[in-house]
Order: sequence, then C-alpha cells, then structure tokens
Amino acid sequence: MRPLLLAVALVGLAASAQAQSAKLKIQSAFSQSMPVLGEMIRNFESRMNAMEGHGVRLRVYDADKLVPTLQIFDAVSAGKIDAGFAWPGYWMGKLPAATVFGAIPFGPDAPEFLAWLHEAGGLAIWEEIYRKQGVVPIPCGVIPPEASGWFRKPIESEADLAGLKVRYAGLGGKVLQKLGASVTMLAAGDIFLSLERGVLDATEYSMPAVDKNLGFYKVARHYYFPGWHQPSSVMELAVNEKSWAKLSASQQAAVRTSCDAATLWGLTRGLALQGKALTYFEKEGVEIHRWSPELLARFRQAADEVMEEASAQDADFARAWSSLRAFLAEHGRWADIAYTDR
Amino acid sequence: MRPLLLAVALVGLAASAQAQSAKLKIQSAFSQSMPVLGEMIRNFESRMNAMEGHGVRLRVYDADKLVPTLQIFDAVSAGKIDAGFAWPGYWMGKLPAATVFGAIPFGPDAPEFLAWLHEAGGLAIWEEIYRKQGVVPIPCGVIPPEASGWFRKPIESEADLAGLKVRYAGLGGKVLQKLGASVTMLAAGDIFLSLERGVLDATEYSMPAVDKNLGFYKVARHYYFPGWHQPSSVMELAVNEKSWAKLSASQQAAVRTSCDAATLWGLTRGLALQGKALTYFEKEGVEIHRWSPELLARFRQAADEVMEEASAQDADFARAWSSLRAFLAEHGRWADIAYTDR
Repeated sequence: MRPLLLAVALVGLAASAQAQSAKLKIQSAFSQSMPVLGEMIRNFESRMNAMEGHGVRLRVYDADKLVPTLQIFDAVSAGKIDAGFAWPGYWMGKLPAATVFGAIPFGPDAPEFLAWLHEAGGLAIWEEIYRKQGVVPIPCGVIPPEASGWFRKPIESEADLAGLKVRYAGLGGKVLQKLGASVTMLAAGDIFLSLERGVLDATEYSMPAVDKNLGFYKVARHYYFPGWHQPSSVMELAVNEKSWAKLSASQQAAVRTSCDAATLWGLTRGLALQGKALTYFEKEGVEIHRWSPELLARFRQAADEVMEEASAQDADFARAWSSLRAFLAEHGRWADIAYTDR
Repeated sequence: MRPLLLAVALVGLAASAQAQSAKLKIQSAFSQSMPVLGEMIRNFESRMNAMEGHGVRLRVYDADKLVPTLQIFDAVSAGKIDAGFAWPGYWMGKLPAATVFGAIPFGPDAPEFLAWLHEAGGLAIWEEIYRKQGVVPIPCGVIPPEASGWFRKPIESEADLAGLKVRYAGLGGKVLQKLGASVTMLAAGDIFLSLERGVLDATEYSMPAVDKNLGFYKVARHYYFPGWHQPSSVMELAVNEKSWAKLSASQQAAVRTSCDAATLWGLTRGLALQGKALTYFEKEGVEIHRWSPELLARFRQAADEVMEEASAQDADFARAWSSLRAFLAEHGRWADIAYTDR
C-alpha cells in the first residue's frame, strides 16, 4: 500500500472508532434555580458532559424557554423538540395514565416506585403507553415525599376543606375536590401572588427546600405534613422516538445510565436538604402540623375512590395501576416486617 | 498542504480525540450467582461496556479468583490488584472505621445512608480515611434491609441468646456478643455445613432472596425480622490510588456515574425480589418471626454501647459516626413527619 492510501485508510479506521455525533435539545419543566427539582436534569447534563467519547451534544433549556411547561409533552410528541424533562403528572388531562408513573396518593415511596418501574414491569407499561404518542419515557429523577402544603388557616376537620380554594397538582387535587375543595392548577411562578391576595386559601408545591425559595411561608403560616398526595414523585426524560432512534445503542446506554445516576442524586439531594429547611421554617415561626389521623383516613378513603374512578375511565390507567398495586401487595409482605423503625 | 501531509494530520487529529486506553482489574467479594449482591458489580460492568468511547477495559473476577474476600482491601492497598468490590464492614478488624460506611445497627435506611455519603460529607470522611491506605473508595452498590437470620430454635428472651453459637457479621456481631452469644464470622460457602452439623445454632447472611439460594431454611427453620444489624448495606468499589490516577477525568466520571447507577439498580433489584422470596419460604413451612419489642429494645441498647465503645477506641470511627449521627438528627426532624406510613 502506498503511504497516501495507508494514511487515508488510517483516517477511516480512526474515524469509524469515533462515536457518531448526535444532538439532543431538552426543555426542562423547572427553573434551574429550583433546588433539586430544577437541578436533576443539570446533574444528568454534567454527567453526560463529563464523560467524553459518546458524542451526544446536549442543550438543556430552562423552564419556558422553548415551550411552556404544560405543553412539553405535546411538543415532544410532535417532534417540535427532541425531549422534555418533567413530571408525568402534568399530562394528566391529556393522558390520564401518565400520572401513575409520576406519583400516587398514599402510594409507594421512592425506592419502591423505582423498583416497580425498573424491576417489576412498570417501565414496560409506561413505554407501551407513550409509544402510541411517539415518545420514549426514561425515568430520570425522583424526589422524596413532598409536604402537604401551605394553608392560611388551620384545617381541623373535613368541614374546613369545603369551598377552600387550593392549588394542588395531579391525583391529590382530585382527592381534595372530592372533599369539597375548589382546586386549581397553577405554575410555580403564579402561586405566590394568588396566595398573598387571597385568591388562593392554600397551596402545595413540593418539598420544604423547594417551597422555601418560593416564599409561601410569608403569606400562609400553616404547613402540613405528611404529603400524602405525593409520597414520592418520579421525573421523566421524555424523548421523541425519532430523536431517540438517531442515537446509537452506546449513546442510548449513556443516557440511561446518566439518568439512573441523576435519579439517585435527586433522591439523596432531596433527603439531605429537608431537615435544614424545616429548621429554618421553625425559626421563622411557621406552624408545622401533622394531619390528624381522622383527616388522613378521610384523604385515604377519597384517594381509593379517585383511583377506582380513574381506572374505570381509562384502560391504560387501570392496567398501570393494577400492575403497581400487585407489586406493592407482594412487596408489602416483606416490607411490613423488614424495617426496624416503620 | 500536500495530500499525504493532510492525511497524516487528519490521522493525528482523529487519534487525539480517541480516549486513552486504561485497564481496571476488579476482584469481587461475591459470587456472580448470588442475587443482587453478586450482580451489582456486573451491572456496573455492563453499563461501562455498553458505553463506548471512554476507553476503560474492565475485568471483573468472581469471588476468590485473585484473592480471598477478606484480603481484598489489603491487596488493593498494596497495589496487587487495581480494585475490589466488597462490603466495607469486612475490614472491621484492620480498619474499624470502614464499617461506619458499610452498615450501622439501627442505623439509616439506604436512601438516608447515601444522602449522608453523597450530600452531607460522609464520602469526604471515607476518602480521607482510605487515603491513608492508598485507596479511593467509591460507593458502588446498596441493598435494602437484611433479614435478622436463621435460628435452629426460637429465641424468646435474652436468656436464649446466652452461649448461642452464631455467624453474624460486622457491628451486629458485637451486639450479640454483648448479649452473651458466641459469635464467629464465616464466608458464605462455609455456613451451611456448620449450621447443618450444629457447629452453628444460627446465622445471618443477607436478604431473603440471597439467603434462599444458600439453603439455610433447610436446616434452621426460624427466620427472624427485622434485620436491625444492617438496615441497609453500602458496597464499595475500592480502587488503588495509583490505578485511579491512571484514569482520565472523563474515565473517572464514567466509573462514578456507572457506580451511582449500579447503586440505584441494587436498591431496586433488592426491593423487587424480597416479597417473592418470603412467599416461597412461607410455602416451605419456614416459621417467620418478628423480634419481640423487648428484645429489639435490648438489641438497640447494646448497639448504642457498641457504637460508644468503638468510638472511644478509634478516632476515625468516632469522627465518621459523629458526622452520620449529626446528619440523622437534623434529617429526623423532617423524616419524623414526612412519611404517610411510618
């Protein structure tokens, strides 16, 4: 072989060992400044960027930069953007089953939720449901229990809920509706003013460390626990199926592994910040309440009804919830005796 | 530029973009056939291998192939092998503080343990302690609560523990010693025969799904819960500092991210298998017990003494435990009210 041909052959060899280049534009549902919630997709991004050689170029857009949060799924489905990072419960209106992969009132904690998704068939059902929309769901974050929210007045009985104007997301909102509350869904940035002006009597948003930055404690002084409506919340990287297919198997593996690592990060970061935030609220004179056993029982009963009704209305919801419930039943035989402090 | 020179320049360019090649030989403490425990490092390996481009070539050796389990840490420290995958509690004799990163009787559950390590200073202390031995610790797995073990006769009071010959690992073994048991530490493969022949009256090993394959239920019919001695157990990838320094920043990032993902996998896989295993034992007629509140209180009291004594004897142990305890105290203010079912 002549030198030139050899050199050209070597170029070809080296180039073929190089990963193909691919782009992924991701719209986040959360502002980067939001602790944990806004940081998980950045954690994913840093991990991907720190690993050279896979050839995936990421661009993560902060909340509302390309499309508003509640339109992310449609934009991904239509191929207007490659991918979105969000909470599946946001698509409840359009795709009721999505919320079964996001959070369940009185449902699993974070490790149990992820065990069902990854090791007991949950993700396969999720993939089937999203495939009809041309979307590939990848679990890419999780947070520990949310708080039950901020109330301008203490809630001592079911009667106090009647007519209460609350911002409550997902299935939890349906539960409060059943108990007579008037439930609306507002994006994070619109809540504070409504609460301050009395357009809202109460709101939940997330965990103490997240709620703190949103300032609700300045205008609603009663903070309730536990957050029965979201004992854990799974986040998705929802990728348009054509954008996903453009990634090589190796690139897809890098995305999945980085998402799993970002999920672990969200859980640990979420846990690590809450004690401090609670101590801060106590110093600020916030009144921290635990729901009475009677009200918790009432919420649970209403939640059971909500899950039954949603199952009756939507076959995908029914299938996903029935799979999760079967897993929790079997798992519960062990979990009921396995823990020292529960 | 002439074609030949151009081609040569292109070869150089393409080659420099290729990751440097590096090798990592890893001795596992567990047999690959052991559910979850033996599979976590294989999960790490598959993730690394599925991602091309980082240039790290791994070789994972099954238990005892290069060095016996209890000598892994010394072999890594001496540079005889690059790395080991094991439970830090195994080095308790040589390095008492190591066990604080592995499992604590009545200590944190898996997410709390990882939150302390990754987000509240635990890993930094671990790194400092291992640095003196020339070893870099990377959390690379975790499992949910173990069972409390297999007993040939039921244990109804503290008196039943006196003189009992048990195989119990780590700090949990010290707790039982305090209560009069005669405690030995055997590797997995040596337990069954000792139990069958009555050389042992009881043994713990791991979670139901792991214990099942080891067959203990055939010779000891009383299975106790909860596994107060290891509410969760963190696994380490311990890497010789020189082998670690040979990896590029990008390769180190691939290892850390794959370890985090394998950790999440261990937790979810661990949770997913236990319900099924317990159902199996019930069908086999195993008597499943929960420790009486009196005995649990006694174990807890003895565990407090063990932690105090170990802290008095070893400054590193004291520092690590004091950091973990401070984290749990702050975290507990939130955790005590945050969960619906605890």
